[in-house]
Amino acid sequence: MCSVAICGGSGYTGVELLRLLIGHPHVEIKAITSEKSAGKRLDALFPHLNGLTDLVLEPLDKERLKDRADIFFLCLPHGTSQEVGAYLLENGKKVIDLSADFRLKDPSTYEEWYKIPHRFRDALKRAVYGLPELYRNEIKKASLIANPGCYPTGAILGLYPALKNKLIKEDSIVIDSKSGVSGAGRKAEVNYSFCEINESFKAYGVTNHRHTPEIEQVLSSIAGRPLKVNFTPHLLPVDRGILTTIYAGLQKDIKEEAVYSIYRETYSSEPFVRVTEGLPDLKYVKGTNFCDIAIRINKRTNTLIIVTAIDNLVKGASGQAVQNMNLMLDLDEATGLRGITQFP
Amino acid sequence: MCSVAICGGSGYTGVELLRLLIGHPHVEIKAITSEKSAGKRLDALFPHLNGLTDLVLEPLDKERLKDRADIFFLCLPHGTSQEVGAYLLENGKKVIDLSADFRLKDPSTYEEWYKIPHRFRDALKRAVYGLPELYRNEIKKASLIANPGCYPTGAILGLYPALKNKLIKEDSIVIDSKSGVSGAGRKAEVNYSFCEINESFKAYGVTNHRHTPEIEQVLSSIAGRPLKVNFTPHLLPVDRGILTTIYAGLQKDIKEEAVYSIYRETYSSEPFVRVTEGLPDLKYVKGTNFCDIAIRINKRTNTLIIVTAIDNLVKGASGQAVQNMNLMLDLDEATGLRGITQFP
Amino acid sequence: MCSVAICGGSGYTGVELLRLLIGHPHVEIKAITSEKSAGKRLDALFPHLNGLTDLVLEPLDKERLKDRADIFFLCLPHGTSQEVGAYLLENGKKVIDLSADFRLKDPSTYEEWYKIPHRFRDALKRAVYGLPELYRNEIKKASLIANPGCYPTGAILGLYPALKNKLIKEDSIVIDSKSGVSGAGRKAEVNYSFCEINESFKAYGVTNHRHTPEIEQVLSSIAGRPLKVNFTPHLLPVDRGILTTIYAGLQKDIKEEAVYSIYRETYSSEPFVRVTEGLPDLKYVKGTNFCDIAIRINKRTNTLIIVTAIDNLVKGASGQAVQNMNLMLDLDEATGLRGITQFP
Amino acid sequence: MCSVAICGGSGYTGVELLRLLIGHPHVEIKAITSEKSAGKRLDALFPHLNGLTDLVLEPLDKERLKDRADIFFLCLPHGTSQEVGAYLLENGKKVIDLSADFRLKDPSTYEEWYKIPHRFRDALKRAVYGLPELYRNEIKKASLIANPGCYPTGAILGLYPALKNKLIKEDSIVIDSKSGVSGAGRKAEVNYSFCEINESFKAYGVTNHRHTPEIEQVLSSIAGRPLKVNFTPHLLPVDRGILTTIYAGLQKDIKEEAVYSIYRETYSSEPFVRVTEGLPDLKYVKGTNFCDIAIRINKRTNTLIIVTAIDNLVKGASGQAVQNMNLMLDLDEATGLRGITQFP
Repeated sequence: MCSVAICGGSGYTGVELLRLLIGHPHVEIKAITSEKSAGKRLDALFPHLNGLTDLVLEPLDKERLKDRADIFFLCLPHGTSQEVGAYLLENGKKVIDLSADFRLKDPSTYEEWYKIPHRFRDALKRAVYGLPELYRNEIKKASLIANPGCYPTGAILGLYPALKNKLIKEDSIVIDSKSGVSGAGRKAEVNYSFCEINESFKAYGVTNHRHTPEIEQVLSSIAGRPLKVNFTPHLLPVDRGILTTIYAGLQKDIKEEAVYSIYRETYSSEPFVRVTEGLPDLKYVKGTNFCDIAIRINKRTNTLIIVTAIDNLVKGASGQAVQNMNLMLDLDEATGLRGITQFP
Repeated sequence: MCSVAICGGSGYTGVELLRLLIGHPHVEIKAITSEKSAGKRLDALFPHLNGLTDLVLEPLDKERLKDRADIFFLCLPHGTSQEVGAYLLENGKKVIDLSADFRLKDPSTYEEWYKIPHRFRDALKRAVYGLPELYRNEIKKASLIANPGCYPTGAILGLYPALKNKLIKEDSIVIDSKSGVSGAGRKAEVNYSFCEINESFKAYGVTNHRHTPEIEQVLSSIAGRPLKVNFTPHLLPVDRGILTTIYAGLQKDIKEEAVYSIYRETYSSEPFVRVTEGLPDLKYVKGTNFCDIAIRINKRTNTLIIVTAIDNLVKGASGQAVQNMNLMLDLDEATGLRGITQFP
Repeated sequence: MCSVAICGGSGYTGVELLRLLIGHPHVEIKAITSEKSAGKRLDALFPHLNGLTDLVLEPLDKERLKDRADIFFLCLPHGTSQEVGAYLLENGKKVIDLSADFRLKDPSTYEEWYKIPHRFRDALKRAVYGLPELYRNEIKKASLIANPGCYPTGAILGLYPALKNKLIKEDSIVIDSKSGVSGAGRKAEVNYSFCEINESFKAYGVTNHRHTPEIEQVLSSIAGRPLKVNFTPHLLPVDRGILTTIYAGLQKDIKEEAVYSIYRETYSSEPFVRVTEGLPDLKYVKGTNFCDIAIRINKRTNTLIIVTAIDNLVKGASGQAVQNMNLMLDLDEATGLRGITQFP
Repeated sequence: MCSVAICGGSGYTGVELLRLLIGHPHVEIKAITSEKSAGKRLDALFPHLNGLTDLVLEPLDKERLKDRADIFFLCLPHGTSQEVGAYLLENGKKVIDLSADFRLKDPSTYEEWYKIPHRFRDALKRAVYGLPELYRNEIKKASLIANPGCYPTGAILGLYPALKNKLIKEDSIVIDSKSGVSGAGRKAEVNYSFCEINESFKAYGVTNHRHTPEIEQVLSSIAGRPLKVNFTPHLLPVDRGILTTIYAGLQKDIKEEAVYSIYRETYSSEPFVRVTEGLPDLKYVKGTNFCDIAIRINKRTNTLIIVTAIDNLVKGASGQAVQNMNLMLDLDEATGLRGITQFP
């Protein structure tokens, strides 16, 4: 049994981690923190956990916390996470950080997009980007995982086979993403209140969403040269899920079936990527760690269109974190992640 | 390992059984039938099952089917189910029938409400009403389970402690239920199309819903005398869940806390009933086999108000069916039913 | 042209008043107030009003405001409203108060339920309860209207014909109401955030909702003796609408059609009450000032079941306020209120 | 008063036309047809119209119908519409066709995409594409209007100023659209049932949606040379509205504010186009005839991003049809179209 702690457990990614870890056969949850709700029983904050846990939320006292677990999941705001992560790393702990703090390799890019400096550059250097489909071997040996952002997960997994195989023009990529509301976190804001979101749909963060440099960093690394992309997030009136529609000009004449072969081969041994003939639907991946991918070729414009679907809280956050933990612990990668979608 | 078959697998209760049984450690699914979709792979009909099963739907040929499994789940329309159930029972199989065909003890009541005769009265006599909280011992020994209706499950569990302990006036009971749309099944009807249901809410089947005699049969049996109730179902614009608000005049002066004690004691060793101080919410039980119950006393009118919440497809159908199977197989009652709500 | 002002214009009832008054042929909106958003253009706060109004929100300075309009709509919190209402009344203005401050005739009842004293009892005495179907003549002559609460409107209109005609037992009434989220106002609270409400359903305020004494006051007045009722509100995951299901024991043997005749006759000349054979649906009244009513008799329990549907922001608030204004101005009662539901 | 008839009145565009035309001061609705529901009162089919109309649906007998109205709105399936439209045109009637039958100028393109021949080419030649912002003068003189498709309306209005002013590269256009479910019509299909759509999101018709050639025809005409575009529709779990996100490479260095000036100037006298600084939201246009447009420039990729929002049933269908009728009748273009969004 591995002992784990969750730092920042009162948000949606924290409670989703709990759902996955309570059901995980090789894990014991030793502590869960929340500044706002310290002292409260977890099931007082989240009544759906009634009878399922006796955990009590506690303040994040990193000195005392560090000896109580082997693996720490950080669900903290960016800026806070870098300090806690660096401290735990220094103290020989394994850390899976769900914030953005260790994702961008270049501290100046981090500072440009997040408007705060990165003060723990040694830790940053040791961080591994936790996308198992691309970096599995590094993850297995890592002590600090930068768990990918939700949008980047769906975008990168969709583009990886095409970019790696030089199928597409690298300067023409459009990434149009649509996310459920839980992606914004658990917030007391009129903008996220039911009546403002229900029956609504809108784009936001057009041209300046912070996941842009993260997507570009990984795509550039795949392509072997710097890439810039058009990335537009939208807010869907659903609880969970991100559907991403990607457009890229084809470099050459290639048939849809040939592209499908490349995609199927790339992901043939992946437990959580499903390359499907039918088009993905958020409803097919909700609550699961799957990334579903379908592709189409528009012959009239010679464009590759890639559609991916994930659950933003699972493959886009907590599920991927557990997948990374499994890899770090040398467990079967799918342990605790085999739950099937509730349909409908 | 126990081999099971699902008769009628193309609807929502069938696919929910699949979700629970694929994850069940002591079960192997040997067959799944559908007349309309026979010959199709299950994951062609339900793409969310992609990669999770190789089952192919087949027609219901009961002679050939009977030897392929030990336990049969029937998710068939009423009228069809009685014949299949009786046949399998005669052939020594264990049957869990999710239709209404074996629920009403009196065939004339069945005929009055379902407008067709009951032609298998011997089987009917052997049927046990599959509500474990009331009939656990009978279920363990049964070969034919009449799995309770979704509305009756929430209504009966809410009223059972109060009725059994003679707290309430038996002729004043109002049961006001609100159900998610999956309760209506998987239907190609304009009335259940998204645009007609979304942002809507309505009562239906007022005074004549077929779950009325089922509720009355069990409540009468608890009370020890014939009862009639006012039962009104409503249609909620959500996928899953039934919330039931029950009103009954109190027989005597009693404090809320005393009633809570009775409820807590009644259900103290039940794995799937949670008596909670806070009021239930569909969101807390979605995807689980829980029935959450809270009570309030209106001192000004001397009325007991009971609120219960279940997931109509789990505790209200397929989850309860698996709970019954576990009891019949002498397994831990909660096997395969420990999944936690996805919140949100 | 009549000049009007809206005090408290940044919430849902305020903006709904605006929708109705901008389209009203005999009204000019002279001022709209908001403490939080004073100085902002209205269309900056509500972008859907872009191009439709040049109004700028201003602080509520009652001395300066009083001379700028003839009729004042108060969409203020209770407690605040009583002072502003009394001041304007004293200064010879007509006031339509959408808060609860002038609804309860007995100040001690007000104090008991709202936990603050009523300091303007002369004004309170002059207030007329603004339910045109019951108090049309008084409204025409009134200077201060206590616009009814949303729940009371649907409950009272449903019970009025039955109570007035002594059809039902007065001590057995159950009022089970289900409201859309806009009824809670425009709030920055996690409890009302999209992810917590979507796919949820729950009861709240069981036995202690503040609309209870308002309902009881009017029903008692109809019945000619003090009545107590069981009233339970629930929160529906829709933007708008209240559906109310009412149960009451019948005093005598009467046929459904006879009750329908009484209901139809009672409301025969009402422009905004539709007595319908089919059961009401929120979707049929959304955006309109209608109250739809259907009745059923449960012969097995000798109970009358009444189902009513209104839009909580229209007939339950701003639409009824405009209807009252029309009466006070001796205009056709339906002026500005003839818009048809958008379906779907 | 102008007498009008609606052919095909049992779908969502038909009933939306009714909503707008019942409230229109210069129109009398003389007939409404439906093959399936002939003989039924309209309010039996659509209970929200209870008390608002006495119309009875009748079969489409074009010989008898032609003399009963001056203007005919056709809400018929493509293929059927061309014959009825041509017949009425020959008989001197004015026709506004909401189907696709008269939109594509080249009959072979029609045949390629709709898989049926166009048999009324003379009528086709006389048809005017009913997008007032581009073709107002032609519409005023027309007898046969091809009312634009819902997706083309939002796409074309978004691209028109940029294309006309040669701001963008014509071969790089990506049009990513998201539509509410009413766009699919009133259908009894499992795919459009509540439980399959709610909490879902997906792309469909990728590379082959029939609105593609319609978009390309108008954009090509604006650009003065043949254009091909990438157009991907998606299905949103909301009743109404289309949000379209458009990407096009900029031809030259230009500032966002300069592009805004061009957009504002282009649409300065348009009653139904709002160029807004804030990003559009479906909720701001629901129920209205507005098309809201915002633009952003991605300097890092030198791309223009245009976001537009319409209500697919109003500006995308019936509202635009009424706007066209107003133009044909030389009325104020906004007559009957001034209703304000219900918010929320």
